[in-house]
Amino acid sequence: MPQLNDTHDPKLTSWVTSANDGQTDFPIQNLPFAVFRRQGSQEAWRGGVAIGDQIVDMATAVQAGVFSGDALAPAQAAAESTLNHLMGMGGQAASALRQALSKALQTGSSQEAALKACLVPRVQAEYALPARIGDYTDFYTSVHHATNIGKLFRPDNPLLPNYKWVPIGYHGRSSSIVISGQTFKRPKGQVKPPEADAPVLKASARMDIELEMGVFIGRANELGEPIAITEAEDHVFGLVLFNDWSARDIQPWEYQPLGPFLAKNFASTISPWIVTMEALAPFRAPFSRPADDPQPLPYLSSATNSARGGLDIALEALVLTPRMREAGAAPARITHSNYKHAYWTAAQMVTHHTVNGCNLQPGDLLGTGTLSGPTLDQACALIELTTGGKNPIQLPNGEQRTWLEDGDTIILRGWCQKDGAARIGFGECVGTVLPANA
Amino acid sequence: MPQLNDTHDPKLTSWVTSANDGQTDFPIQNLPFAVFRRQGSQEAWRGGVAIGDQIVDMATAVQAGVFSGDALAPAQAAAESTLNHLMGMGGQAASALRQALSKALQTGSSQEAALKACLVPRVQAEYALPARIGDYTDFYTSVHHATNIGKLFRPDNPLLPNYKWVPIGYHGRSSSIVISGQTFKRPKGQVKPPEADAPVLKASARMDIELEMGVFIGRANELGEPIAITEAEDHVFGLVLFNDWSARDIQPWEYQPLGPFLAKNFASTISPWIVTMEALAPFRAPFSRPADDPQPLPYLSSATNSARGGLDIALEALVLTPRMREAGAAPARITHSNYKHAYWTAAQMVTHHTVNGCNLQPGDLLGTGTLSGPTLDQACALIELTTGGKNPIQLPNGEQRTWLEDGDTIILRGWCQKDGAARIGFGECVGTVLPANA
Repeated sequence: MPQLNDTHDPKLTSWVTSANDGQTDFPIQNLPFAVFRRQGSQEAWRGGVAIGDQIVDMATAVQAGVFSGDALAPAQAAAESTLNHLMGMGGQAASALRQALSKALQTGSSQEAALKACLVPRVQAEYALPARIGDYTDFYTSVHHATNIGKLFRPDNPLLPNYKWVPIGYHGRSSSIVISGQTFKRPKGQVKPPEADAPVLKASARMDIELEMGVFIGRANELGEPIAITEAEDHVFGLVLFNDWSARDIQPWEYQPLGPFLAKNFASTISPWIVTMEALAPFRAPFSRPADDPQPLPYLSSATNSARGGLDIALEALVLTPRMREAGAAPARITHSNYKHAYWTAAQMVTHHTVNGCNLQPGDLLGTGTLSGPTLDQACALIELTTGGKNPIQLPNGEQRTWLEDGDTIILRGWCQKDGAARIGFGECVGTVLPANA
Repeated sequence: MPQLNDTHDPKLTSWVTSANDGQTDFPIQNLPFAVFRRQGSQEAWRGGVAIGDQIVDMATAVQAGVFSGDALAPAQAAAESTLNHLMGMGGQAASALRQALSKALQTGSSQEAALKACLVPRVQAEYALPARIGDYTDFYTSVHHATNIGKLFRPDNPLLPNYKWVPIGYHGRSSSIVISGQTFKRPKGQVKPPEADAPVLKASARMDIELEMGVFIGRANELGEPIAITEAEDHVFGLVLFNDWSARDIQPWEYQPLGPFLAKNFASTISPWIVTMEALAPFRAPFSRPADDPQPLPYLSSATNSARGGLDIALEALVLTPRMREAGAAPARITHSNYKHAYWTAAQMVTHHTVNGCNLQPGDLLGTGTLSGPTLDQACALIELTTGGKNPIQLPNGEQRTWLEDGDTIILRGWCQKDGAARIGFGECVGTVLPANA
C-alpha cells in the first residue's frame, strides 16, 4: 500500500501556476496519467501527465532528456500510446516516475525550462482510452445499491445471503468501453412487459446511469497464483470515474440465470485521467462493518485493509439536458456519494478475483459497482433515485427526469479534500445518449 | 453464408498423401488455421494450415512466394503471430486464401516443390492461442443443458421463461483461456454447504467439464451498428472445440444475482485448429423448433438460418485418469453429442449480441454453452451425467468418477462426416487438472 511521502506535502507548489490555486483537480500532489493528442490533429496518441491547466507531453519530455535513473524506464512507458507497459511495471516504477515528475514540476526546479517546452494546454487535448483493456469486471460493492436494487428486482429477497460474504462481481464487455466525451446510441433490445405474452424488440425506454469508480490493474499475476490481501494494492495502478450505462427494461428480462448482458454492454464511459494509488495515499479511510455483520473470511482480511482499505473520494453526477444546453444553463446535480461507503475495498476485489488463480493483467479494469451511499439522495442510479421509475427527479429548470432522454449528457465528478492535504480531483467523465437507430 | 464450391469436392486429393486416408481430421477439404512453432524451440510463433500429418508454415510459404493476387494479403496475415488481422479481413479474403491453398496442395500442383519445403510435421508442433481474444462471451444454446442444469439449481423452475426467446449469454474471462495441452490448478473458492452457517475457502471438490464449441469472430462491426441475421455468418471466422471448466461447488454460492464468476474464470481450454465456416459448408443442418415452441423474433429469424443455420458436428469427451495413464490404457469416452442439437445458431448468437450496438472485434470468442443432446448419455457436463453428483460414471478399468480428480485429463473431439463429403475434423482439445495450491 503506497505510503505518504514528500510528494504529498500540501505546501508544494509548481512553476505551472494554475496548479497552485487550491481549486484545480490537478495540483502537483496529483500527477495523474492519460493518453492524449491535440484535438483534431493526426498526431500520435501518447501519454501525458496533468498539472494545473496543462499536460506534460511525456513523449516530448522523454526526448528532451528530462528523465534519468529509476524514472527513465517508466517515463518511456508513460510516453507510449497505451499505458499497459507502465501499469505492468508495478508500484515502485510508477513511484520513481512520480518522484521525478514532482521534482521537475516544483517551483524553482532546474528542469523548468526543459519541461515548459513539453506542455500542451489541457483545453487543446482530446483523449483515448488510457490502456488496452483486456478484461473488464464489474463488482457490486455498495451494500446500499445492492439493497435498493434488490428491493426492486426481488421485493421478497432484496439482499441475497451471499452478499456479506462474497465480493460479488461479474465479467463485463471491454470492447464497448469508451473515453469521456464520446456519445453512444440508445440501445435496442428484447423487452417483456409483465402483462405481455411475448417480448418485443424496441429501443430502451429506461436508460439509466451507474456512478462507479474504475480500478486499473497494474502488475500482473500469473494464472494459478492468487494475490494475497496484503499484496493486493501493489497490483492496482490507479482509479478513474466510471459510468456503467444501463438499460433497465432490457435487464430484468435477460438477466436470469447468467447475469446482465445486453442491458450493459452497449457502452460504458471512463474519465481520461488515472489518479494513482500513491496520489490517493492521504485519503485512505477505515474499512468497517456494522458489528452484527459477518466479518470477512481470513483471505479477505488484513489489519491494513481494516485500518486504511477504504478511500474518501467525494462523487457526484450531474445532468445537462438539451433544454439546459440551449439555454446556456449549468448542468444540474442529481446525486452525490462517496467511495468510502463501499462494503468491499479495492484490495478485497483484487484478492477475491484471483483467489481461484484467475490472472489479472496490466490495463484490466475493475468497476466498483454503483457507489450509492446510505441515504436515498446518495443513490447513484436513476432506478434508485426514482424508486424504479415511480418518482421523477425535479430539475432546477422545471424539467423532470425518470430515465435519460435523447440528448441528455451525464457528467460524473470525483475529488478528495481534507484539512492538511492538497485537493486531488479526477476531472470529469462525460457521456451523451443519442437517439436509437431507426 | 459460405457456399459449396470446388474446394469441397470429396474427390480432391493432396500430394501430402497423409491427407488422403479418409481418416484424418485434416484432408485438403478442411485447411484449418492455427498458430504454432516447433516444440521446445525459441522460434517465432506464426500461422500454419493443417494438411494430413503436416503443417504448412505460412511464414515460410509467404516468403517462398507461393501466394499472389487476392490470396497474398490474407496469406501474409495468416503468417502473423496471431490471426486477428486475417480474421478481420472478412470471409472473401479467407475464401481467396482457401482457394489458393487448395490449388497449391492438390495432387499435381505446380507448387508442390515450393510448398513441400514449407511443411512442418504436426507431431513436432506446439501451439499458442490463435488470436488475441479481446472479449469472450459464453452462451447457453442447448435447451437440454439448460433444462438439466436448471433442474439441479432450481428444481421448481428448471427452464426460465426467457429461454425460448432470448439467446442467453454472459461475458466470461479472456485472460484465462488457454490452448490445448496446458494444465491448470484446481481452483479454490468460497463454498457454502446448505446446512452451514458460513462459507469456507477451500479447493473445489466438484470440478466439472463443459463440452462446447467456440466461435471465433471475423469481421468487426462498429459500436452502435447491429449485425443483421442475414449478415451474421460473414462475421464468423471459424470454430474450435472449447472446454469451459467449472467448479460446481463454487458456482451455486456466488452466482446470484450477477451470474457465474470464479466458478468459471480460472481456466478455459480451446483446441488449436480453427475450422473455417467455409470448410463446414457441406455440413449445414436445418434449425428447427418443436411446433409448440415460440418462433424466434423477426430480428433472429431468416429463411437461410431456418434451412441451414445449424451445423452437424459430432462431439465427444474422453477422460484419461492417472491410473489409465500408468497402465498405458486408452482414454475412455464419457459422453457424445452433436452441435446440431443447439437451440440457437451461431448466426443468432452474433445477431443477438450486437442488437444493442455492442461491437464485436476480430478474434473475439463466443462459446456455444454446454452442447448436451436430448438424452442423458448425450449430456456434456459431469453435473448432468451424474445427476448432480448422485450417480458416478463407471469407467472401463473399474474406476468411477463423480467429479474430476487431480491428474485427470479431458480430451474433446469433434468431426463432420456424411456420404458425399470429405470427413472434416477439429483435432483435439486437451486439458489436465493439477492439484490446488497448498
